[in-house]
Amino acid sequence: MENGTVNGYEMDEKQDRSRSVISIKAILSLLLESVDENNHSRSVISLGMGDPTAHSCFHTTHVAPEAVVDALQSGKFNGYAPPVGLPQTRRAIAEYLSRDLPYKLSSDDVFITSGCTQAIDVALAMLARPGANILLPRPGFPIYELCAAFRHLEVRHFDLLPEKGWEVDLDTIEAIADQNTVAVVIINPGNPCGNVYSYQHLKKIAETAEKLKVLVIADEVYGHLVFGRNPFVPMGVFGSIVPVLTLGSLSKRWVVPGWRLGWFATSDPSGMFRNPKVVERIKKYFDILGGPATFIQAAVPGILELTDEVFFKKTISILKQSSDICFDRLKEIPCISCPYKPEGSMAMMMKLNLSLLEDISDDIDFCFKLAREELVIILPGTAVGLKNWLRITFAADPVALEEALGRVKSFCLRHSKQFE
Amino acid sequence: MENGTVNGYEMDEKQDRSRSVISIKAILSLLLESVDENNHSRSVISLGMGDPTAHSCFHTTHVAPEAVVDALQSGKFNGYAPPVGLPQTRRAIAEYLSRDLPYKLSSDDVFITSGCTQAIDVALAMLARPGANILLPRPGFPIYELCAAFRHLEVRHFDLLPEKGWEVDLDTIEAIADQNTVAVVIINPGNPCGNVYSYQHLKKIAETAEKLKVLVIADEVYGHLVFGRNPFVPMGVFGSIVPVLTLGSLSKRWVVPGWRLGWFATSDPSGMFRNPKVVERIKKYFDILGGPATFIQAAVPGILELTDEVFFKKTISILKQSSDICFDRLKEIPCISCPYKPEGSMAMMMKLNLSLLEDISDDIDFCFKLAREELVIILPGTAVGLKNWLRITFAADPVALEEALGRVKSFCLRHSKQFE
Repeated sequence: MENGTVNGYEMDEKQDRSRSVISIKAILSLLLESVDENNHSRSVISLGMGDPTAHSCFHTTHVAPEAVVDALQSGKFNGYAPPVGLPQTRRAIAEYLSRDLPYKLSSDDVFITSGCTQAIDVALAMLARPGANILLPRPGFPIYELCAAFRHLEVRHFDLLPEKGWEVDLDTIEAIADQNTVAVVIINPGNPCGNVYSYQHLKKIAETAEKLKVLVIADEVYGHLVFGRNPFVPMGVFGSIVPVLTLGSLSKRWVVPGWRLGWFATSDPSGMFRNPKVVERIKKYFDILGGPATFIQAAVPGILELTDEVFFKKTISILKQSSDICFDRLKEIPCISCPYKPEGSMAMMMKLNLSLLEDISDDIDFCFKLAREELVIILPGTAVGLKNWLRITFAADPVALEEALGRVKSFCLRHSKQFE
Repeated sequence: MENGTVNGYEMDEKQDRSRSVISIKAILSLLLESVDENNHSRSVISLGMGDPTAHSCFHTTHVAPEAVVDALQSGKFNGYAPPVGLPQTRRAIAEYLSRDLPYKLSSDDVFITSGCTQAIDVALAMLARPGANILLPRPGFPIYELCAAFRHLEVRHFDLLPEKGWEVDLDTIEAIADQNTVAVVIINPGNPCGNVYSYQHLKKIAETAEKLKVLVIADEVYGHLVFGRNPFVPMGVFGSIVPVLTLGSLSKRWVVPGWRLGWFATSDPSGMFRNPKVVERIKKYFDILGGPATFIQAAVPGILELTDEVFFKKTISILKQSSDICFDRLKEIPCISCPYKPEGSMAMMMKLNLSLLEDISDDIDFCFKLAREELVIILPGTAVGLKNWLRITFAADPVALEEALGRVKSFCLRHSKQFE
């Protein structure tokens, strides 16, 4: 290799649409690297990632690891699972999801994935074809943009409306969809906005999708994590209006994101997804995926059956408390405004008023200076599609959250324009 | 949805190259379904899948589940791992692989995957670009063909030569490669042939790849599982001749295929893969993969450090014994010939002489009739690219293997042409 290259090693940058997508993890790493911890007596507090396990107040129920240890120690689950998942795991998740639906899902409707991330990738890979486009929310979750880039699926954005509780702008959806649109993505409970859609709004989304002849991909990874006016309504409730692909996982509700146990379910009582060719293609695609460990899959029926309601209530109560702290403390900071008090999920969006700050050029500049000066990590809104906004993850210890938001306040006051 | 379809739901079949790939698991399922177990007093014996955990003589070392239970019960590994893997896991695998290399891999060279399957997919997805082609062995492992189809990578086959111990036909490689060829795939120890390449042959492969300016993808999922003349030599030994992507996993050597713990390592002392753009693209791709569970990753350093050599020797001794049984019993069957006595991995190829059989049309017909009449499942060679051959997995209990091969012999004798 005298010239140091081989065929195909030089990536064609025009072809590589993924280069334009900013990854949340990449930005958070850069923010963390910019902190010089040795120069400070205080510790770094990250409100950047939606991983509650980093905070001691959040932990899974004892039921979950016990079920995994039992499955592992039985010695029966060291071999391959079927690529689409163990039958008992698919059945248990079908029953779990069916509790909230007006019809019953069967095992055949459920495919087991390595966390919700892989469920997103499967959904987009299945729908990708030359010329196709997909409608994604703005602000959103950039893994969708990244999967679309790798699958050569064109992305078209519709806005979520902060003044309407981050509801979907249905007029935009109708305006940007065309005959090559394959799906519209809804994240409910909302990441990054912390909103929870009403039954009526979800129904309107379903009716709009039906009119446009596009599937709905319902990302319900934060399913059931709600603490406001609206109850959690799964999009699958409207599966008879429009076929729905429901994505979910144990990650958030059971506080085990590292277990990588997710699912991809066809919530479609009209049976469109039972077309043998479609099923064959989905199954073949699963042949090339790793999938989660067999013994973790084997633990799922027990986990779903034995987890106590008290455990769920406790997690939700902490989330409500920490989101209240977040909202109340941010109200005290003049250059930050929160259009919406979070009612679900683990994140919220707040708007920066740069005209009140004197040496901050944008949200990215804000976050890097905040990291360096105050050792607090917050995600710039640019990473989720909204420039000069910030995303904060409130799934944190209340004490750490108070401390972090106090530092944000000091930072903002220090950088405020002095009006005379 | 009055017409029962939505945009993009109808797959464009011309675009869907995956439809032409036959999946091993799909064929084995069909074979199993064709057996009517109720009509027989005997049980089904499958020599179809490379999953040794189905047989009680193969089991993992106690060290492995203990390390996983410790990691899980510590409560420290329920959160997300970095998408490319935990640092300590990457480091431990780099050290493990470096034991057999003339240079040292670093943590940065190792990426953790959901089993070797996902490592294959990552390798092909990274290399795919419009017009590119990849060179695959025939017979081979059809997951490569399936990944290539989903990634729109053209496949060109080169033969493995049974009369030369299933060595690579290097002349064909030179003939079929062109400036759009991105890689040549080598599976060593060999699946489905049970061969183990010599140092000299591997060196020639490296030199040929260097001349053609293509990478080598070295699938070493059966690494170290050898019991013949040739020791196992990792392809990475020749990394200074040509850049090598090494794929592997705990699955086979530790007898835990269901744990989904694999790796993708850049065995490339010249550092071509350290180009920041390449690293960025690989990392972004890992952002959309699920990856294995964090607590299983956390157990890897302990598993690699504490596993006793005695455990490995025992597995190899059983494999040698069962492959000997297989070879000896097959020699007694006139219509079957084995050109090569297996020296590694868990599978071997045998050739059908159809002219000696009177009512068998091909390898697929042979396998379906064998399943129905004798309740023995064997993979038709067509599934791995060789029509009228058979692939047999000898990773089975010796007693079950003797029984299964006795049934194959009865079947062959019953279907033999009567010569007068």
